[in-house]
Formats: sequence, structure tokens, C-alpha cells
Amino acid sequence: MVRQKPNQADLPAIAGNGLIHRRALLGRGAAIAGAIGVAGPALATGAAAEPLADPAWSLQVGDAMPPYQVPSRFEKGVVRTVDNPENLPRNSRARTPHHLLQGMITPNGLHFTICHGGVPDIDPDKHKLVIHGLVKRPLVFTLEALSRYPQTSRIGFVECGGNSAPLFSNEPIQANVQALHGLASCSEWTGVLLSTLLEETGILPQAKWIIAEGADAPHVSRSVPVAKALDDAMIALYQNGERIQPGQGYPMRLWLPGYEGNMNIKYLRRLKLTAEPAMSYYESRTYAQILPDGKSYRFYFLQEVKSFISSPSPGHVLKEPGYYEISGVAYSGTGRIAKVMVSADGGKSWGQAALQDPILPKAFTRFRMPWRWDGGPAVLQSRAFDEAGNVQPTRAELVAARGQTTKPPSVLAFPSQHFNAITSWAVDTKGGVSHVYA
Amino acid sequence: MVRQKPNQADLPAIAGNGLIHRRALLGRGAAIAGAIGVAGPALATGAAAEPLADPAWSLQVGDAMPPYQVPSRFEKGVVRTVDNPENLPRNSRARTPHHLLQGMITPNGLHFTICHGGVPDIDPDKHKLVIHGLVKRPLVFTLEALSRYPQTSRIGFVECGGNSAPLFSNEPIQANVQALHGLASCSEWTGVLLSTLLEETGILPQAKWIIAEGADAPHVSRSVPVAKALDDAMIALYQNGERIQPGQGYPMRLWLPGYEGNMNIKYLRRLKLTAEPAMSYYESRTYAQILPDGKSYRFYFLQEVKSFISSPSPGHVLKEPGYYEISGVAYSGTGRIAKVMVSADGGKSWGQAALQDPILPKAFTRFRMPWRWDGGPAVLQSRAFDEAGNVQPTRAELVAARGQTTKPPSVLAFPSQHFNAITSWAVDTKGGVSHVYA
Repeated sequence: MVRQKPNQADLPAIAGNGLIHRRALLGRGAAIAGAIGVAGPALATGAAAEPLADPAWSLQVGDAMPPYQVPSRFEKGVVRTVDNPENLPRNSRARTPHHLLQGMITPNGLHFTICHGGVPDIDPDKHKLVIHGLVKRPLVFTLEALSRYPQTSRIGFVECGGNSAPLFSNEPIQANVQALHGLASCSEWTGVLLSTLLEETGILPQAKWIIAEGADAPHVSRSVPVAKALDDAMIALYQNGERIQPGQGYPMRLWLPGYEGNMNIKYLRRLKLTAEPAMSYYESRTYAQILPDGKSYRFYFLQEVKSFISSPSPGHVLKEPGYYEISGVAYSGTGRIAKVMVSADGGKSWGQAALQDPILPKAFTRFRMPWRWDGGPAVLQSRAFDEAGNVQPTRAELVAARGQTTKPPSVLAFPSQHFNAITSWAVDTKGGVSHVYA
Repeated sequence: MVRQKPNQADLPAIAGNGLIHRRALLGRGAAIAGAIGVAGPALATGAAAEPLADPAWSLQVGDAMPPYQVPSRFEKGVVRTVDNPENLPRNSRARTPHHLLQGMITPNGLHFTICHGGVPDIDPDKHKLVIHGLVKRPLVFTLEALSRYPQTSRIGFVECGGNSAPLFSNEPIQANVQALHGLASCSEWTGVLLSTLLEETGILPQAKWIIAEGADAPHVSRSVPVAKALDDAMIALYQNGERIQPGQGYPMRLWLPGYEGNMNIKYLRRLKLTAEPAMSYYESRTYAQILPDGKSYRFYFLQEVKSFISSPSPGHVLKEPGYYEISGVAYSGTGRIAKVMVSADGGKSWGQAALQDPILPKAFTRFRMPWRWDGGPAVLQSRAFDEAGNVQPTRAELVAARGQTTKPPSVLAFPSQHFNAITSWAVDTKGGVSHVYA
């Protein structure tokens, strides 16, 4: 089929280097499809389409249905990267492959996980949750007892405080979005609000903190303000409709929407109300980062406003100039995303991305921006704004406040926590994508 | 711990036989928790909670993390029921276990599936989608080409036209909610709007229908009005974030939000624009039901407003009188759910259920109603209303219009399609739950 040459005058530009106005997307594609037709010579290959050939799978009976379905064998590369596959006596992380996903929901099989003593194999009938300490009535809850309480569902993200830590390095580390930002995921969680259970136990006036403790071998524990517990904290029992999976804390986890991942204690077995925080291992060491002024940055619970582009991203290759959709996720521990701005010229000019409904507080929001790549170099960036007026910082702003490292960070290095600044992907003239600082 | 006897005067009743006002739920549980405290003698067992015993999983290193996570081995019973496990040469159905799920999202592993020639094993690199017939430019789309187009995400249900068919029987069939209503599920779907592709191909004025055809062995095909294609039809590529699974049409399916499941052609390989419908097998036979007046009920696309209670439901046992949460899903192919009314006395009195946000058009909406079971007999019902003013019918109203059968229906019996009437669960004095007509 003959397709016309690009006619740039037809493209409703919104910012430099090929960003196209988002109204084109929202207007049911009319302008975009027109732009595709003229800008992308081989997006679709026209051909007389009769008769259709019958491949092997059209000529034979297919497979039996499994009781629990799994992805196609052709998707075997769509998995989490596991950094401790031999289960050596240290932390284990499994990262979400954002470059291969779409939408706002992370499927359960691909939700990120960090465990500090492996994934425990808990018998739900023998697991109990104790609420005690500065309460009027200490109580023990079995899973069956919890199932009688009023439940609530909420779509929201969990993000490790150490997600994106490689971006503190003073040189851009060449890795894909899974390696850089794969410690954040988003699910529909269902469970019992902690406030409901605290109404059962009662709270003594001097209680200001709740020490949450897991049933895994290290008994990971963190201190949570009572105010958060009474706000939107949940004892999560289900994830995307089914019981939460072992990596997410089966049979129950604490979920603190918008708060640092490590605080969302998995395998939850105890909530002890206290007057003071516990100063436990993870809050006084790993998650107490030293700032440039030498002070310790403790109890910084909130995962602040953030976004990253998942497509295109490192590992993807743009085969030819023409139309592409820039897409990624934005989220804020404060509330809803208000807008996401996208740049294709390293921040010189910005266009407002389309946000996918529903836009929910403390949840991933998928953003999309039509882009006509002209084959030249480009630097793609996204910058998120939340409804409270918070703005995702530039990397320069963040490292001025928090510092940077001269070698790739580990959990032992600092700074390594709460990186929420802008990420930049460079597109070269061959269509390759790499991580840059811009 | 000593717990007080129930004091019914404390309960904010909304309808007969123990339904409690939903404001109690929405008010962060205060009244409900109070009600639990007095109404449920053993909801939680109080005890001095120190020291906590350490079970085996707290004393040993846990398992390694798998690249693709699966549910706990203790959840092995949470699976789809497969009616053709030996893959004999007939239809196969796998049903969603709603009685074991929560929230609005169905996890991919448990989404219902019907295949007419097994589940094909399609190589996505060799699969193509052809759009031809009454178009200006017939086009062929590879998966890679489609990935360049603007995408959109939407949470919505798919329901087989034959879901709930057993309720046409003139005697209530004793089966659980999975067997009765398990051919409906809800996911976040991401893909390319069909309208976008049709702007590429152009549409000739005489085109009124689109014949959609799958690449599975039976080449299942259905006729879709062009108006629906231009409205909200999607070429779905992703389901809850990951590529759609083989049972859902990998690598692509047609998704027609709110329309009869069979029309959402899986393994989509062809869309042919025509002036007339194809009168294909599934639209002229299985899905063309004979009404009591002898006329064929053809091309009734819409899955109408519906709801069912998933908890409690047959197979569940209420161990003792006290507080329970009645919970289920409501949905309408027309749009959003406006309200759900719940009865505990077989329809004599009704209370309005709490609807879980977000309430999205053509998606599952989870409803919840607090209930204090007094230990006596009860008949639980739910009735959904959609934003267009449609009301879920009683069973008597539906069978008057559509007929009923004198034996358990099969796909060969009629009526067997589009049952959307009220379902009734009887609770007996031992806490057992059964299917009744009321």
C-alpha cells in the first residue's frame, strides 16, 4: 500500500521534538490515526486479505483448560527479576517488569516482593493476629474471625523506600526500568480497616505508636503512628480478588496506603500499641538515611509524588521514525495525581499527558502521550504533580537535598532511599534507549 | 473474655431480619464494631497476648522467591471448576470461584473461560489481525504494529450469555455460586480502541456489521454492529497489566464492554465489514433463544443489570449467630450500578447496600451489607439498579417473559440465556446456605 510522506503541518504539536496534543487521544483517535497514516509508513501493512492462511493452531484442537490459568509459554520472559535465586542468608528482592506491562493493575504473579528471611510457608488456620499493649481489651484474631468483620477494597500502590536507589549514583547506571523502578506495584487490596479492629480493642490515651511485627523468621517490625492506623490502614487479606500471595504476606499484611513499603508488615502477627516507637532495626538503620548535613532522616513515611516512563524505556528499540505512544505510571502517597507533564527534549518544553481514568488516590495512574519520533536524538522525561500541589523534583534538586553516591549504591550505602526525582531516557538515532541524567 | 449479650436496641436496623444501616459501615465502622462487640460473642477471642508462640515458619528461613509468583499451597482449592478436563471434542468451560473471592478484580488465573475447540497455543509473532471487507483500505496488523497505536485501559466485566442458566430450571438446582454464576469475571483490559483502527482502514457507507473471527480451530465468529465498534470496542492486548492469558484469547481478543461474552471473539484474526450479519453458528443457533411465543430472540447483545451474593452463599456455613457481612457483585452492560438493595427476609423488606468505590460503568461493583444473624431462618437476596433506571427482575418476572425448563438446562436446552434475575440463598437454623426460589 502506498502511504504518504509525513506532513508535519497536520500534526497538532504541543511541545518540542514531536509531542502531539493529547486532545487527539481523547477525541477517540481521529487526529492520531490521521497522523499515523501520514507519519508512520509501515505501521500497518496493507494487503488483500482473502484468503487467510490457517496456521497450525487453527487446524488442531487446542489444549485443555487448567484450573488455575497461567500466561502463554511465549510470555516466559515476562517475569520478576530475582536477586537472590539461591536463597542465600540475606535479603531477597523480586522486581516488577514495568517495561512489559500496561494499565494500572500489577498482576499478582508480577508484584514486587522483598523478604528478609525468605518467603514463609504459613498455615492460615494456625496463624493469629494479636492486638495488645496500650489497649482496653487485648484481642487475638484468627483469619476466620477477621473474615466476619466489615471489609473494604481499595486500589493502591506499594513501593519500597529503596526503589530507584540506583539513581542516587553520580553516573547514570545503565539498566532497564525493571531494575531501576521495579520495587513498586499496584493492586486492588481487600481487607479489614485497622480502625475497625481498634474500635474492638479500644485505645488507651497514652498510645501514640503501633509496633507491627511479622511472623517471618526475622520478625520484621516497624513503628506506625496511631493516627495512620486510624486513618486508612488495612489488614489486607485479598489482592486483586484472591488471597494475598506468599510474597505479599500471606495470609495477611498491614497495608498503609502511600507509606514506605517496609512498613507494610507482611505475615502480620502482632500490633502492639505503645507510647514510643520501637526504634527497631529497619527504622533505626536501613530506613534512617544520613543526609548531607550529617543528620539522620528518620520516620519519613510518605512515598512522595513520582512518575516514570515505561514505554519506550531501555531495552526497547524504535524500529523506524513515526508515531509512538509514550506511556508510564505516576503515583503519590499524598493522594491523586493531578497532572503529568512529558518532555521529548530533555525538559526544554513540556506537554500535558492524558491520564487514564479512574484516577484514584495513592494508586498508579497510567499516563499516555502521543509522540512522532523524527529519527533524531530525543530525551524523554515525565514529571508528576499531585492534587496537594506537590511536584516531582528534578534529580539536581533531589541530590542537593539528599546527596548522591560515587558508586552504585547498595542497601548498605547511603543515600539510597526515597528517590522520587525525574528519570530521563535518551533515544539515539538508531532508536536505542538509554538511561541519562538531563 | 466476657462479652455482653446482644442488645438489639443498639443496632441501627434498616430492614427486617437483622439488616443494619449501611451508614454504620461508611462511618468508619464505629457503630458496626460496637454491634460486633455485643452481638458476636466469639468474633475475637480475648487473651493475654504475651508471649507469642513461634510456629515452625517463624523459626526457619523461608522459601526462595519465584520469578512468577503463585498462590500459597494452602489455597489449592481456590481454582476454576473445569467441565471438560479431558479435553473431549466439545465445549469447555472454566468457572470463577466467586464464593472465595473479594473486591472487583478477578485475578487472571481465575477468570472464567469458554472455548469451543480447546485453548490454542498461538505464536504471537505469527499471529495477524486482518480488517477488510467494506473498508477503504484493507489492513493487516501484527502485534508489533498494534503496540504502536494509542492504547486505553478500562476495568470491566465479561459475562457469558449462558451464565446463570441453571436458574431457568423450574426447581432450584443445589449448586454453589461458582456453578451458578461463575461465567462472569472482571479485569482491567488494555488495548487499542477498534475505532482507532477503523479510522485507519476507513469505512464504506454501506458497512453496517463487522464479522469478527477467531484463530482457534472452530474459527468462532460473531456479527457486531458497526455502531458498537465505533463506540467502545477494544482490541484487548493486556489483562490486569500483563498480556492476556491463553484462555482469554492470547495474543488478542475483541472486547465489547457489556455485550454477551461469546461476541468478545478470542484469538481475534479477522474483522470483515459487511452490509448484513453473517448469521453464523453461534448467533443463529446457541445464542438465538426461542421465547415462549415461539419467536427467536436473536441479537440480544446486552448483558442486563444483575447482581448476586457471593458471601454467604452455598457451601459456606455460619458457625453461630452474630454479625456477618453480606457481600456480592453487581454489574450492568448499560453503565454504572446506581444502587443495590439487599433483603434478609426473602424480599419482604429491603435495605440499601454500601457500594465500593470506584463505581465504574460496565464493571463489577462490590456491594456490602452488615447483617446480624439471630440464628433463625433467613432468605438473602440482592437486587441491582443501574444508572439508566434498569432494575434487576424477580425470577417470576423473568420466566414469565423467557420461559423456564422442567429439567436442568444444557446449552442444547432453551431457555438457557441471559438470566439476570434475583438469586435467593436460604440460611437454615444450623447456618447452612442453600439455593431457593423466593
